Amino acid sequence: MSETDHPAGPRSAVRLVDNMRFRQTFRRIPAPVAVVLVATANGGTTGITCTSAQSLSAEPPMAVVAIDDKTGLVPLIRHAGRFSINYLAADRSNWADAFSARGADLAELADIIVPGRTSVPTFATGTTAVLECASAEIHPGGDHWIVSGAIAHARFQADAEPLLYRAGAYGAFRPGGDSVRSDHAAVVPTG
Amino acid sequence: MSETDHPAGPRSAVRLVDNMRFRQTFRRIPAPVAVVLVATANGGTTGITCTSAQSLSAEPPMAVVAIDDKTGLVPLIRHAGRFSINYLAADRSNWADAFSARGADLAELADIIVPGRTSVPTFATGTTAVLECASAEIHPGGDHWIVSGAIAHARFQADAEPLLYRAGAYGAFRPGGDSVRSDHAAVVPTG
Repeated sequence: MSETDHPAGPRSAVRLVDNMRFRQTFRRIPAPVAVVLVATANGGTTGITCTSAQSLSAEPPMAVVAIDDKTGLVPLIRHAGRFSINYLAADRSNWADAFSARGADLAELADIIVPGRTSVPTFATGTTAVLECASAEIHPGGDHWIVSGAIAHARFQADAEPLLYRAGAYGAFRPGGDSVRSDHAAVVPTG
Repeated sequence: MSETDHPAGPRSAVRLVDNMRFRQTFRRIPAPVAVVLVATANGGTTGITCTSAQSLSAEPPMAVVAIDDKTGLVPLIRHAGRFSINYLAADRSNWADAFSARGADLAELADIIVPGRTSVPTFATGTTAVLECASAEIHPGGDHWIVSGAIAHARFQADAEPLLYRAGAYGAFRPGGDSVRSDHAAVVPTG
């Protein structure tokens, strides 16, 4: 019911969901909050807050993140050939705001950005996990880019709660079970 | 310190993080639990549980998910050209287990898998959100594949809590803030 024609893509006849329905739906889905950092050509650091950074591959170890084209970060990543993913701790939503350009004092944050093991800029504190990616494969993804990278170094803070985001609000993980799962295909006899 | 040489990839000289460190690090990161469903050639349905399904693009509306090569799901998606992402509700961790092939009664689940608006198999109940993807772009990602799709239909259950997974345990989102953010680049004067 909330679908519109969309001119782009190889299947232009397919009606896609409209923008409002798209946003309403993804507001239901919580995601961890990370800041992607990359070095600029002039020796500075640029970063954006995102909620799309995920594990990709175990062998080789890789991570993947979707980056909005309009942030301008992807050309910098392409040039640098490396980037870091900094998963924020639950008490650092102010940093998430800062890297969303919502008016925080960025000069204040400069003190906590340090070169990582592989010299890529990383957060020194305030994270649950930091991944240093030593390469960047970039694939198109609509108005975003899919950026994957091989993980050259990883560190984590075992006692830090991760910051989550859902429906316009920050939050945290509330444990509510003890099951363990792994990814395997299962065939369901339907149809 | 926990890094090993890895032969694969264009930069074979880069030392990558070892498997144990990779897994320890991503155990820190919570993620929403979804089941990806795809029709099989013989009229059945196959699915896998994953924690990597995310929003990708708003215009056009797209989602992305990383799928383990060894699940065998990607050739089915490539053949069908469509798939669904079913984000599970917090009380459905048993379904997450079932699609991880941990011994649940899959015949029981057949009753709740129904054709969606675009005829792709979807869960009829037990979800917070269901995305029907009408296309599939497939990119390599180490031992996984990066699968993106244009969203032809989306529905959500506003009163259902989403299921999360972290450190081997299921859980839920605990709201703990009221900030709103958006993705914009911010330049930090370091270095």
